Amino acid sequence: MTTMRDRVAEYITGLQDKIVTALESLDPNAPPFVRDQWEREQGGYGISCVFSTPYSSTPATTVLEKAGVNISVIHGALPPAAIKQMRVEHASIPYDPDSQAALPFFAAGISLVIHPRNPHAPTVHANYRYFEISDTANPLPGSAPIAWWFGGGSDLTPSYLYEDDVTHFHRTIKAACDAHGAALHPAFKKWCDEYFFIPHRKEARGLGGLFFDDLCDTVHARMPDADATARPYTADDIFAFVRRAGDAFIPSYIPILERRMHTPYTDAQRRWQLLRRGRYVEFNLVYDRGTKFGLMTPGARIESILMSLPETARWEYMSEVGTEESSEEAKLVEVLRKPKEWA
Amino acid sequence: MTTMRDRVAEYITGLQDKIVTALESLDPNAPPFVRDQWEREQGGYGISCVFSTPYSSTPATTVLEKAGVNISVIHGALPPAAIKQMRVEHASIPYDPDSQAALPFFAAGISLVIHPRNPHAPTVHANYRYFEISDTANPLPGSAPIAWWFGGGSDLTPSYLYEDDVTHFHRTIKAACDAHGAALHPAFKKWCDEYFFIPHRKEARGLGGLFFDDLCDTVHARMPDADATARPYTADDIFAFVRRAGDAFIPSYIPILERRMHTPYTDAQRRWQLLRRGRYVEFNLVYDRGTKFGLMTPGARIESILMSLPETARWEYMSEVGTEESSEEAKLVEVLRKPKEWA
Repeated sequence: MTTMRDRVAEYITGLQDKIVTALESLDPNAPPFVRDQWEREQGGYGISCVFSTPYSSTPATTVLEKAGVNISVIHGALPPAAIKQMRVEHASIPYDPDSQAALPFFAAGISLVIHPRNPHAPTVHANYRYFEISDTANPLPGSAPIAWWFGGGSDLTPSYLYEDDVTHFHRTIKAACDAHGAALHPAFKKWCDEYFFIPHRKEARGLGGLFFDDLCDTVHARMPDADATARPYTADDIFAFVRRAGDAFIPSYIPILERRMHTPYTDAQRRWQLLRRGRYVEFNLVYDRGTKFGLMTPGARIESILMSLPETARWEYMSEVGTEESSEEAKLVEVLRKPKEWA
Repeated sequence: MTTMRDRVAEYITGLQDKIVTALESLDPNAPPFVRDQWEREQGGYGISCVFSTPYSSTPATTVLEKAGVNISVIHGALPPAAIKQMRVEHASIPYDPDSQAALPFFAAGISLVIHPRNPHAPTVHANYRYFEISDTANPLPGSAPIAWWFGGGSDLTPSYLYEDDVTHFHRTIKAACDAHGAALHPAFKKWCDEYFFIPHRKEARGLGGLFFDDLCDTVHARMPDADATARPYTADDIFAFVRRAGDAFIPSYIPILERRMHTPYTDAQRRWQLLRRGRYVEFNLVYDRGTKFGLMTPGARIESILMSLPETARWEYMSEVGTEESSEEAKLVEVLRKPKEWA
């Protein structure tokens, strides 16, 4: 019998390959993604697939500007402080406040951020992950872990608002959710709007999508009343949902990129895109939990954590761009300030 | 009798003007700084003087790329959480753990960040400030506040290491310190190296300078044994030190900028500068206390807080720049990893 650990690792490996292949085939003349396998000293490995172009004062003309599609399959010992925090959502984790003992954990996930070069083509982020806490570092197939859960999501961050694109993105991932229960999409769409919010700018990072965590076989705080028809409960059923959400990535995003990647653009539009990338940096460095957790973790692979940052970002003091009423830039800002239903 | 509030406000206003004038006269054909006076709804005002050039896909040729020289003179009510934190260094602040009462505060300071365009010319930051907590919002001249202190510092962040420049910078500010007591420079130089450190990169943001806070008429944690000859103790004497440090800004930095601002540079050197600016952004958004405090403060002026960010920053995955042994880039990285004595 194959363990969930192996099944997730196999799934994300295949998905990574499909996504990288899809992106490469959009732009056959561009340099390929660099594939970079790394080992983690404390246990496990990862494969980073990264796209970039050499620096030049005259910008390159590739479809992508910077992109990373990474997987990691790691295990190790969870320190008491992390155990304490995880117990909030997972009461099955034993916790003795006097104990300094660590618990074995396993985590496997895929994480991607794609920053296209064209200001009309949106940035996208997706992440799907499985987490397990055991009482032994190498559990036998068939033995139940102490706790396990899935998390993930996907969200779109355009510089210019094309309603058709945003609707397509949201409908595609909503359909993937709805096939596994009606409670999923409303809960995870709302969570996404709440999570990707930049308080000091009073605006969202992007136009939303899905965000979820701690999805397992117990009641979920975001869907407290969901019965077995409204959401998946077993590990098999949740993994089936996660696979469908992961598989929805390519159809949710690639058609948008194809449609916008050759749209002519002006210097003014490039400037606005770089300013929006500045906001992306602000969210990721100041608020993103995964990034903050990674930066604070001794021995974390900083290069993989910060691959989400754009190649280039820009900051202007009191920029007037986006403030002129009914401009294309202001239209985007308006929906960033007031999240909408798109599907 | 003039209050310290008024004396500090007058001093920083004059210093701001001198610094902006010095920068403008280096590059008479560049657009002038934009002077922007603002009022704070909750009390006080500020003057931001900001330099930038319009966006263009072909870079401008001005000496500065982005610079802000700001002052603010504000007052208001300090919430209990902030009072609690300040009490650690200022035991004279009354604190009743059961009270929800706020205390009147006053803060005046100058804060500047200068990002020159030329990769051979270093970025510089300086900040000098006075803080006061009173039992009444408008104390009479001559009445003593409950607590007061000065803070500040100045530090240099080059992309390329010119030892002469760094030595000149450090010697100039050391001389300003030494004139007011031998304990100041060693304590504040060390504090600067500790403060401007990026743990996840295992390197300093720059090559140091001065950093201090909580300098008042009681024993200071960083100079516990300093007697009256080794450091200033009275408000008058501390303000005299702060003025001398502030006045040292122009002679510490402008000659370096003058020397490097027309050095020819390559695309490769510009790329390295943009990567270093990425690190500057990482420090400021992830670690800088002033920035974090500002971002979390409701009603704070975000544009003034984030004016420290560079116009443009760059991130590369696993960049090879700076890793090639004995390259000019690697020489900088070496001293960022191992802070040195420069004066």
